[in-house]
Formats: sequence, C-alpha cells, structure tokens
Amino acid sequence: MLPTANLNPPFNITRASHVCLAVTDLARSRDFYRDVIGLIVTAETDDTVYLRGLEEAAHHSLVLRNVESEPLALYVGFRVRMAEDIDAAERYLASTGIRCERVEIPHQGPTLRFRDPVGTHIELTASMDVVDRRMQSYNEFRAGSPQRLDHFQVVSHDVQTATEFWSTLGMRMSEYTARDGTDELWGTWLEVKGNTHDLVFTNGHGPRLHHFAYTVPDTTSLIHAADVAGSLGFGDEIDRGPGRHGISNALFLYLRDPDQHRIELFTSHYQFIDLEDRPMRWDLSNPRRAQLWGMPASRRWFFEASKFPGEPVRKPLLQAKPETLEDSLSIH
Amino acid sequence: MLPTANLNPPFNITRASHVCLAVTDLARSRDFYRDVIGLIVTAETDDTVYLRGLEEAAHHSLVLRNVESEPLALYVGFRVRMAEDIDAAERYLASTGIRCERVEIPHQGPTLRFRDPVGTHIELTASMDVVDRRMQSYNEFRAGSPQRLDHFQVVSHDVQTATEFWSTLGMRMSEYTARDGTDELWGTWLEVKGNTHDLVFTNGHGPRLHHFAYTVPDTTSLIHAADVAGSLGFGDEIDRGPGRHGISNALFLYLRDPDQHRIELFTSHYQFIDLEDRPMRWDLSNPRRAQLWGMPASRRWFFEASKFPGEPVRKPLLQAKPETLEDSLSIH
Amino acid sequence: MLPTANLNPPFNITRASHVCLAVTDLARSRDFYRDVIGLIVTAETDDTVYLRGLEEAAHHSLVLRNVESEPLALYVGFRVRMAEDIDAAERYLASTGIRCERVEIPHQGPTLRFRDPVGTHIELTASMDVVDRRMQSYNEFRAGSPQRLDHFQVVSHDVQTATEFWSTLGMRMSEYTARDGTDELWGTWLEVKGNTHDLVFTNGHGPRLHHFAYTVPDTTSLIHAADVAGSLGFGDEIDRGPGRHGISNALFLYLRDPDQHRIELFTSHYQFIDLEDRPMRWDLSNPRRAQLWGMPASRRWFFEASKFPGEPVRKPLLQAKPETLEDSLSIH
Amino acid sequence: MLPTANLNPPFNITRASHVCLAVTDLARSRDFYRDVIGLIVTAETDDTVYLRGLEEAAHHSLVLRNVESEPLALYVGFRVRMAEDIDAAERYLASTGIRCERVEIPHQGPTLRFRDPVGTHIELTASMDVVDRRMQSYNEFRAGSPQRLDHFQVVSHDVQTATEFWSTLGMRMSEYTARDGTDELWGTWLEVKGNTHDLVFTNGHGPRLHHFAYTVPDTTSLIHAADVAGSLGFGDEIDRGPGRHGISNALFLYLRDPDQHRIELFTSHYQFIDLEDRPMRWDLSNPRRAQLWGMPASRRWFFEASKFPGEPVRKPLLQAKPETLEDSLSIH
Repeated sequence: MLPTANLNPPFNITRASHVCLAVTDLARSRDFYRDVIGLIVTAETDDTVYLRGLEEAAHHSLVLRNVESEPLALYVGFRVRMAEDIDAAERYLASTGIRCERVEIPHQGPTLRFRDPVGTHIELTASMDVVDRRMQSYNEFRAGSPQRLDHFQVVSHDVQTATEFWSTLGMRMSEYTARDGTDELWGTWLEVKGNTHDLVFTNGHGPRLHHFAYTVPDTTSLIHAADVAGSLGFGDEIDRGPGRHGISNALFLYLRDPDQHRIELFTSHYQFIDLEDRPMRWDLSNPRRAQLWGMPASRRWFFEASKFPGEPVRKPLLQAKPETLEDSLSIH
Repeated sequence: MLPTANLNPPFNITRASHVCLAVTDLARSRDFYRDVIGLIVTAETDDTVYLRGLEEAAHHSLVLRNVESEPLALYVGFRVRMAEDIDAAERYLASTGIRCERVEIPHQGPTLRFRDPVGTHIELTASMDVVDRRMQSYNEFRAGSPQRLDHFQVVSHDVQTATEFWSTLGMRMSEYTARDGTDELWGTWLEVKGNTHDLVFTNGHGPRLHHFAYTVPDTTSLIHAADVAGSLGFGDEIDRGPGRHGISNALFLYLRDPDQHRIELFTSHYQFIDLEDRPMRWDLSNPRRAQLWGMPASRRWFFEASKFPGEPVRKPLLQAKPETLEDSLSIH
Repeated sequence: MLPTANLNPPFNITRASHVCLAVTDLARSRDFYRDVIGLIVTAETDDTVYLRGLEEAAHHSLVLRNVESEPLALYVGFRVRMAEDIDAAERYLASTGIRCERVEIPHQGPTLRFRDPVGTHIELTASMDVVDRRMQSYNEFRAGSPQRLDHFQVVSHDVQTATEFWSTLGMRMSEYTARDGTDELWGTWLEVKGNTHDLVFTNGHGPRLHHFAYTVPDTTSLIHAADVAGSLGFGDEIDRGPGRHGISNALFLYLRDPDQHRIELFTSHYQFIDLEDRPMRWDLSNPRRAQLWGMPASRRWFFEASKFPGEPVRKPLLQAKPETLEDSLSIH
Repeated sequence: MLPTANLNPPFNITRASHVCLAVTDLARSRDFYRDVIGLIVTAETDDTVYLRGLEEAAHHSLVLRNVESEPLALYVGFRVRMAEDIDAAERYLASTGIRCERVEIPHQGPTLRFRDPVGTHIELTASMDVVDRRMQSYNEFRAGSPQRLDHFQVVSHDVQTATEFWSTLGMRMSEYTARDGTDELWGTWLEVKGNTHDLVFTNGHGPRLHHFAYTVPDTTSLIHAADVAGSLGFGDEIDRGPGRHGISNALFLYLRDPDQHRIELFTSHYQFIDLEDRPMRWDLSNPRRAQLWGMPASRRWFFEASKFPGEPVRKPLLQAKPETLEDSLSIH
C-alpha cells in the first residue's frame, strides 16, 4: 500500500523554506552563490551569510555558516502556517516520541528542530523577517536568476519509513519509483505547496542531503547559469545536466559549490493540487524516469552527498541485484 | 480597512479551474484556441468543445459552447477540495441568502452554481475526469505552449464588495490599487493557490469577464504565440502587449478570440504563501503599476469585455475625476 | 527599373562598422549604453567614450562625443576590406564629383569621410585596433547582451537616388517597399555582409539618422533589455516594440537614449547571399510589411530622428495622398 | 607557418550549401529530419528526399538518397558566386591535377564534383531553384526550428594539407587547435561567409564526415529539439551536449539520425570579417577549447563518423602520445 497524505495533519507545513550549510571558506562560498548562481546576499555577519532568491520576501532561504572542520548539511527548513503550528508540532512530535527543541534563530519567528525517523535534520519555522522582493530589479539579475528555493532531495536508507512519516504530516506523493512488479518505494516525490515536490527521498546510504533546488525563470536562464559557471571557472562543477528528468518533467542543471554541496537549478514544475490525481509511478526498469534525454550523470552525482552533523550514515534496506549503477541507487 | 483573508473559510476553494464561453462559430473558436493559442482539444460534441493546457490532468479548463445569438461568458469555475466542500458551500451560501443550484455537468464531479454579490457567474466543482498530462509530448507543443489555466479578471462596479465576499471565502489579497491617500479599492488581486492571483477584480462597468489567463513556460513561448498569431492572420487581435505589468510582475500578451473574448498568456508568477507578507499597494497615480514598460494598451483593451447571460451591467460606484482613460477604469 | 548591385564595385565595403553621436551629457549617455543596453566601454577620454558589443573585436562600434549644444548624428561608419580600398574609394568619389576627406581617427586605420548624394554623413575605415571579444565572459553580460552593431536606418528625401548610389558601391537590395502598382521606392533594405541589411533608406524629411541597430542573441535577451530599461527608469523610452517586422523578419525593440538618439535591438536576420534570390517587394498598402503583429508605434517613432551637423533637412520628393501616418512616411 | 586565406582566389566560394547522404530507409530518415529536427520537406521522389531550413530560399540543403547497402556521406556541397565561377573552378582544379566532373543535378545550376587532397567528396554549384522562405510561417515551426545549413566538419588524416588547399581557395581560418609549443594543426575552423566556420577539419582517421550543422534561433529552440527527440524516442541519439564549445562559442547539441549520420544544432556564431583579426589559437592541452562546460561527450561522438563512397580511410599523420581520448582525436 502506498502511503497517502493525511488530509487533516497535526500541523500545517506550507513549503520548503531554507537550508543551512556548514562551509569551510565563507567568502568563497558567498561569492559562489552570489556570482555563479545569482542569489541575493541579504545579510552577513562574521560567521554567517544569509541569501535569498530574486523573488523571495523572506529574509533567507540559504544560510552559510563558517566552520573550520568539514562541510556539512546542518538542517533543511520548512515553513509552517503560523506560530500555533509550531506549538502543535511540538505537541505532536513529543506524542510520537520524537525529541524536538525550540531554538531562537535570528530573523526567524518561532522555530523548532528535530530529526525525522530516518535521521534528516529538520527545522520548522513559522515566519521570517520580511525583506523586499527583487524580482523587478531586473538590472540586478545575474547568472541563473534564481527565483526561490523550491525543494530538497535527501538520500535515505529507508524511503518507505521516511515517506510514511511525512505523509502523516500532510505531504502528498506526486511521483514515485518502485521496483517492477512491487510497491517497494525507491524514490518518492512529496509535495505540500501544490506542485511536484518540496521534499524528495531516494534510496541509498543516508541520511545525506543530495541537493537543494532553486527555480529559474526559463531555459535561457538555466543555460546562462552554465555559461557563467564556465566563465568563472566552475564548468567542471556541473555534475549533471542540462537534461530533462522524466520524473517531475524538470529541466535540470546540478552544480557543486566550493565545499561540494550540490545545488540544482531547474524549470518546469507542474501543478499538483486536485485530490483525484494519482501519484505517477515509474518502474525502476524505465530509463525515461531519470532522463527523457541528456548525457549520463557523473559518478559523483550518484555517490556524493552532504552528511548531517553527528548523524551516522546507514546502509539502504533495499539492495539492488543484479546491480546497475542507477538501480543500486535509485536516484532519479 | 483592507479586507483580509478568512483563515478558516466555510469551505475550501483550491484554484481557478475552468471557464465556459458561448461562441457563435464553434469550429472557428476551437481552431483559434488549438492553433493560435496551443491548447489541447480533450473532447468535442455537437455543441461543445472541451480544451485544456499541456500539463493539465483535469478534463477541461476551457469549455466552448455554441450559441446562435451573442457571445457571452457563461461562468468562471473554481475547484473546491472535495465533495464535502460542495455541501459546505451550499449550506454557507444559503445561510447568506445567495441562491445556488446543484448541476450535473459532464466530466465533472459535484458542481454548484451561483452568482457572487457583484453578479459574477460562478461554478464550483469538486473534481473532474482525469486525463493524461501532455507536458512530455513535446512534439505536440504549438504556439504559446499554454501549461494551465491560472486566473480570471472580472470588471466590477463594486470592487470593495467583491473583495470582501471572496476574502470571507478564504481568498487572500496579494496586490491592490487604491486612489492615492485613500483605501478605496480600484483593483484587487486575490489568490488561493499560493501565488499572485486566481481572481482579479477591477473597477468599471460590470460584471463582465475581462479575460482568463493561461501560463506559458517562458518569454520565448509568449513571443512565439504572437508570431503564430501573426502568421495565422490574428496579429491585429493582440490588444495589449507584450509588456510587463508592475502589478504581479507578469510578462503579458492579450489576444481576442473570434468572438472577441479575451485570453491572456503570461509568465512570471511569484510565490505568495507566507502569512507575514502584506499585500502590495499601488497608488492609482503610479504608472508603473500598469506597466514597467510596454506600448500603450489599445482602447478596446480598456473598454471591451464579455458579459454574463442576463446579468445587467452596472455603473461603477467609484468614478474618477478629472478623468484619464486609465484612471476611469483602473484596470491595471 | 530597380537598382541592382554592382558586382564589381570600385572598392569593397564589407559591413556597417560604427556610429558617432554628439551627446550633451557624456557620463549619462555612457551609463545608458552600458547599463540599459549592455555595451562594453572600451575606452574613455575627457570628451569621448568608445563602446562595443560583446562579441566585437574592433575597438568601437559606438562613439559618444560630448557637445554643449544640440545632440546630433555625426556620421555612420562602414568598413572597407583593406587600406587599398580607401585609396580606391578616394579616387572613385573624386571621379564622381563627391568631396571626400582623409582623417586621422584614434584607434582606426586609414579613414575617409564624405557625404552621400542624399546628404548622409559617412566615414569609411579600413581597420581598427583589435581588442578582446567578450563573448565568453558570460558573467559580464548585462541587459540586452548586445553582440554587434548591425545596420543603420536613414530617413531620406530621395530613396531612389540614395539606393542607386549605394548599389553602385556594391550594396544589394534584399527587400523594398513601393507604392502599389509602381516602382517608386519608399524604403530600401541594402546589404553587403550577406544578410538582410547594413543600410536602410526610408522616405521622409532627411537626411536624418532614424536608428542604428545591434543584434541580441535571442528573444529572451530582447525582453530582458526592456525589463532592465523599466527597472532603470527608461520604460517610457521604448518608442516601438516589442513586435515583429514583416520586412526582414526582425523581432525588434526601439529605445531612445538620453538625447533621444534611437537604438534598435533585434534578432532574426536571415542569410541573403545567393545571387538568384530576388529582393522581396512589399506594397505600401500591405500592413504586414511593418508588423506581423505588435502594438502601434508611437508618433515619435515616425517623426523624430537625429540630424547630421550642418545638413539641411529636405522635404521628401514622394508625397502620399490621401495621407495616412505610415504611408506619408513609409518608414517600416 | 599558418596557412592564410588567398585574398584573390581562383574562383569565389560563398557558403556551405548542401549535404547529400545515402540512407537505408528513406521514409524513416525523412521523418527524423522533419519531425525530430524540424526541417521542411521541399520535394520527394521515389529514391530522394530534399529538405531545407525554415529560412532557406534554396531548394535543398539536405538530400537523402535511398540505398540498399550501407549508409554513406555522398558529398558536401558549397556554393560559388555564379556560373562563371564553376568554369573557373574547373580550369583551376584541372591545372592542379585534381580530377573534376560536371554533373547535371535536378534543381541545381551548373555543378562540379571533385575530391579535395584529403579525399573529401565535394560538390560545387552556382545556383539552385528558388523556393519560398518559411521563416514567417511560425505556425509550421517544429522541434529545433532549424534556420539554415551552416557548416561541415570533416575528420581528416592530414589537417595541414586540407587547410592549405581550402585556404588557397579563399577560406580563412577563424580558430585552430595546435599541439602546445608547435604549429602542428590538429583542428582548423575555416570560413568564407563572414562568421566562424563553413568547413572544419579535425585530426583523425579520415576522410569521414563528422557532422553537418544547422543554426537554430536560440537556446530555447535547441533544448526544445532535445525535448522533442526525447518525446519521439530519440533521446539516446544525442551523443553530445547540450554544452558550450570554447572554440567558436557554439551552444551545441549533436544527434544521430537513424543511419547514425550526425547532425549538429547550434547557436552563437560570431562575425569574422575584418582582416586585422587573427585566428584564435587553442592549445591542445587547454580543456576549455572543447567545452566551457558540459558533460563529457560519448565515445561514439569521438570515434564514429560517416565514410565517403569508395574512399579509403587513412591513419592520421599526427599521433598523440601519451594518448588521452581527446588528444588522440583532437576533435573539439
């Protein structure tokens, strides 16, 4: 049985909100996201840089935090509807035995941290400082002209459990991959904001953050981002794309930042609101799920991802045999 | 005081869903929407043609109905979340003294019709027959490659009343125009699906349907639609654009169909989900609200719109003086 | 009889090369061309700014010269193949009674100035200082990403005479407008570099420079230029477009600089090399010659243009009656 | 010493004109070029299909000829300026000991065939039947919207000799690759029509036709071609791209037709007219010559190409050691 979205969830998640990365050279990382990707720097402190997309009115969707040790994904953030939802989340998580913690975060309203059942580090917040949308400052558009943070993809050792958890919280599956003839979930695309995904789980050694994704306005912006990356010496840091995913229909480009965190730029979400729509199933054996067209992804796209601090990486419960590279990972 | 969205509305509207037009030559109108706009024909009967956008899984978003008399806008349709919302809508509307009517509509689930307080003809439905999304049939893309129906704009004699009604039903104002120094509402952009608009009211002789709008993937698609219109002899039926609205940041193109119903193709919605975001105010005196740039709209763009059957057109309560063309209409 | 290109011209013109404008506020004009259009500033002196397109290896294609009096078009420049062609041009022009003058121009090789028979101020040069093409510095692309100077359009009182002169110099007509049923030339598109135009003459009060044109890479660049113009407060300085010319098939956008000189950004040249191709004729009565689609041009687009210094503006020999705005001007 | 263009060549070549391919299933190949690429079918006979790009007024730029045996490149065609140039070519080739042959070809004017010194099969023609340009029939645009044939790339065992021959005929080198510290030519980009290339030679087992190339209007068209290829089941027939060549700055996409002939779609030629411009040199050791960015080309892109009938394939004179895949082939 496929997990289905809880239509009356214990609290209201509204969208993917922000991601916080530990980086080893703050200025270098800031320059990458500002100049190669095109994000706006909202604010900087000694050890933190806050960035956002061109149309975002929220203070930050990407937080870079300086560390001396190794690069890490610190947490991925979701918005809840209002402060009361943070209270409700706290009660609900406690009731299910998940430890959570209220934290004070600059520029954010009530905020809660916890780890989901597969170890993903999560931050929920109810609001942020409001800043100006720059979407009509066309003279400031650079590189990919990223509009807004859209979704996260997490590699997990147990996609089934992860999917059930987030379905209970109201996330709805728009597409999924499963081994042919079974309902073994190898990848699930979960959404809450009315289009294809806010959170994706794919089978593999996890939890690790595979990538976070910003929307760009169009094909031309995506290719311009690649051109700018090439001009600024980051051409080799494209580890997949441009290409077209079968799943979600995204035109995609994946780049690695100076610490090898991965960012996706993409276009072509479709709307997924009506309850009569069923999730789209893709058999693992169908190569079009990964790409309608496009050169093969690099090996590092399949094998590399960002760990969460202190979180052990577990072997996937589902193992492919006979193995092919993609089957063994089931990353789209 | 500005109307604010009811956060616990009596029933759940989820999105703009469909529009039904009376047309005087069914084949000619079908050809226009298929060949000049690029919509998919889902089904045809003797007197009705059903069309949809390339990514839509719902049976229809545009219904053309043959009439021998005059062209009319028959109704604009919204989706509610589920069948129970139709029941709740029926109870709620009855409780407020608004007459409504259950109707059986082919390819639709439970459906209710009513007129809002300013006379707009509305249809609510809970579901539709599911058909295949054509968004990966790239070889079938034509003209503007319209993806999905997005919103309606209605000319109303009383924008304040219209806005209050729909706010009570949960719609939220993302942007608005008001006479300088006052809160007199001259135009309101209302949304329910998390971006700038599902329903727009502008001050003028109404109720009349000013236009319905489909999203297109990018700038190139929008200009290609204009080129195809030119090639097929509809170049003169562009009555505004291409240009960039200040309000909503849309890159727009407006075309008239063979009965002079108006369709907008546009790009560049932005996300509007977080409750701390305030609606964007534009003073009537600010010319950038209408256009960041672009040649002036034609007179017919300002004065012509589609009537609803049997619905008297009322003079606007707010009148501009001294008059300028745009002020007197306050259509963005 | 239509003028035809001299296949063995007295010297070899190779392309439109540069334009020199007198401007009244040098810094303001430089900022316009750099920030609103996206040109590269090659060099600046106290009274002169040299600019070029992103792919140009020639030192300048636009020269701004500070003046305290009125803005003027100083001359339009063409390249000849080599220094010997300057010698040949000098001999040829002398032989036909046209006064010409050798001049020393910074950053240019052998250079000759003269006035053509309809009074257009012309500069021929054989070479320029070579600078680096910036076409792979994608991180420096701004606004319209203009690639290179392409052509000039001159309003002339005598299109027939102008066309005959330049045809003798080897220019070839790709398209033309003529009064229905006659061979009266109202507009001629002349080329030497193998696509639709390097020099255009249109009937009207002249000689005046109507515009000079830069190519942009694609539709998206053209619209981005308009967006940037809007963001920087130049939205009202678009006096025509975006639209599609029937003649030449150009997607066009016309902007006025701070002194009201006019620049066109456009895409969509087609190749015009083969001698068996006949020039394309457009009857004046055919509205598609001006626009396949697009909102009407402003009055100032039709009536305003830049004078040459000391050059009297003459009434057109051909007069339209009964007059329509466009017919009387015959500017596409 | 680098070969330099003969400024007074024995006859005037004007552009790359057409390519003729032997194919094993005529209908299947026609469908590919019409539906996946977007070419216009000008005419069909029992054993031949003639196609052209959307803006081409010449009868054909691609000729498919049915054969029962193996697929082959039959010849690549260039235009000369006029019939007299065919006569001059005939005399010149005879004088240099190259056998050539007058042939009667439907829809072509005076035509001559010969093999260049490295064995490339060449056809020169002075004119073709004129047909209508379809560039304003926007409703007929499909897939990549290819505008015109642009250039050929030939794998040759002796790039030096090939380049010297064509330079004598007036072709001019815009860019080239050479082993570091030497003038050993490994790849040469030769042009005659004023932009980067009409004919390219790269070092390898030859002569073989590596690809022929059509220009497309913009980035969006190029990606749409890939999407259409994916939709029609040809996604795996993309053997390189999308990516950006350092050499020539082309945004490229390479596809294999049903017989494995290779076609390139690309954008971004730059103008190359002025004689003071020097050819751009790229050291073999510079990886940016091949790609500013982009996933690696497939092995078959490097190793597979179309043979000419009866023409032995020779080992390259220049051999790389120590070998890397790209160095050994020196194909950009």
